[in-house]
Amino acid sequence: MKYPDSLDKLIKGFSKYPGIGPKTAERLAFYTITKMDKEEALDLSDALKDAVNNIKECKICGLITDNDICSICASNDRTNELMIVESSRDVIAFEAIGSFKGKYHVLGGVISPLNGVGPDDLNIPKLLKRIKEENIKDVIIALSANIPSETTALYLKSILEAMDVNVYRIGYGLPVGANIEYLDEITLSKALEGKKKM
Amino acid sequence: MKYPDSLDKLIKGFSKYPGIGPKTAERLAFYTITKMDKEEALDLSDALKDAVNNIKECKICGLITDNDICSICASNDRTNELMIVESSRDVIAFEAIGSFKGKYHVLGGVISPLNGVGPDDLNIPKLLKRIKEENIKDVIIALSANIPSETTALYLKSILEAMDVNVYRIGYGLPVGANIEYLDEITLSKALEGKKKM
Repeated sequence: MKYPDSLDKLIKGFSKYPGIGPKTAERLAFYTITKMDKEEALDLSDALKDAVNNIKECKICGLITDNDICSICASNDRTNELMIVESSRDVIAFEAIGSFKGKYHVLGGVISPLNGVGPDDLNIPKLLKRIKEENIKDVIIALSANIPSETTALYLKSILEAMDVNVYRIGYGLPVGANIEYLDEITLSKALEGKKKM
Repeated sequence: MKYPDSLDKLIKGFSKYPGIGPKTAERLAFYTITKMDKEEALDLSDALKDAVNNIKECKICGLITDNDICSICASNDRTNELMIVESSRDVIAFEAIGSFKGKYHVLGGVISPLNGVGPDDLNIPKLLKRIKEENIKDVIIALSANIPSETTALYLKSILEAMDVNVYRIGYGLPVGANIEYLDEITLSKALEGKKKM
């Protein structure tokens, strides 16, 4: 016995997502047709269509937005400091803490030769252009602590310093609440490097 | 900072599913707009709409189907034996093993006073009607091994026996591969009750 065609397509659709295997996709599809309000399912259908049709990258910084220019780039209340991040989700994480008052630039990835991602595949030309045009003097690189991100940070540092920009990176070290005995060696040595007078 | 509206709706849509919390919904929504092929996302959107619009319950047995009557009820190759199950997924599980040649009847739930589900909320009137009309003499109750399912099985047994039908239930006992020392007491006592001559 086969599933009805439209159920089969729904299962296949859900299983395109990472972390959703065939069993979970089946569970979600069955939930859709047997337990969910029809309206909720149609809302999700519309949301999917609207999201892929309407969401684009901000023409200045690369952040996802409904408009041509994101609300941060369009704002007059931001300082001239620029934070470079990998993805739009990182911007949202920093905005949630609310202490950074500058603007962002979203690279859309990090340099990773193994995955065939070079500097030209990232949102770097627009970065250099706006640093000149907006006369930006201070840049904070806020990339994750792993090898491809470090490579990207070093690459950016070299070209930005040549443009006479002060380049900072966010501090590495113990995450709050962490237990020293369970931390990996690299984090511990970064924490030691980053020691501060109390 | 807020998410773009269409992304926000997508996150809310995904989080309607059981087992998908706000973080997972966010991850799925971001994957949709940043990593997924636009075509795949639109296919899923269509699949959702088609599934909730096209899939209905078979007018005879209650199984999910694209048509008015499911392929099993429409088949001439099935015996007159009837298996009563809780949901369409159970039918698919039994069809996967392929050894049952009769037809099915999907209750759409089990009696559960705590959740406000009584016999009238289940697909029972159609069951009694077809037992008379199709002259069914043998019924196998294949419900799960828990209290609401047992209650439902006993209820069905009493009304079906009054209609002069032989009522069976599937065997309870050790699942294949199970280790006796880790099994719960109820399964073990059911296994003992169900002992068979070797």
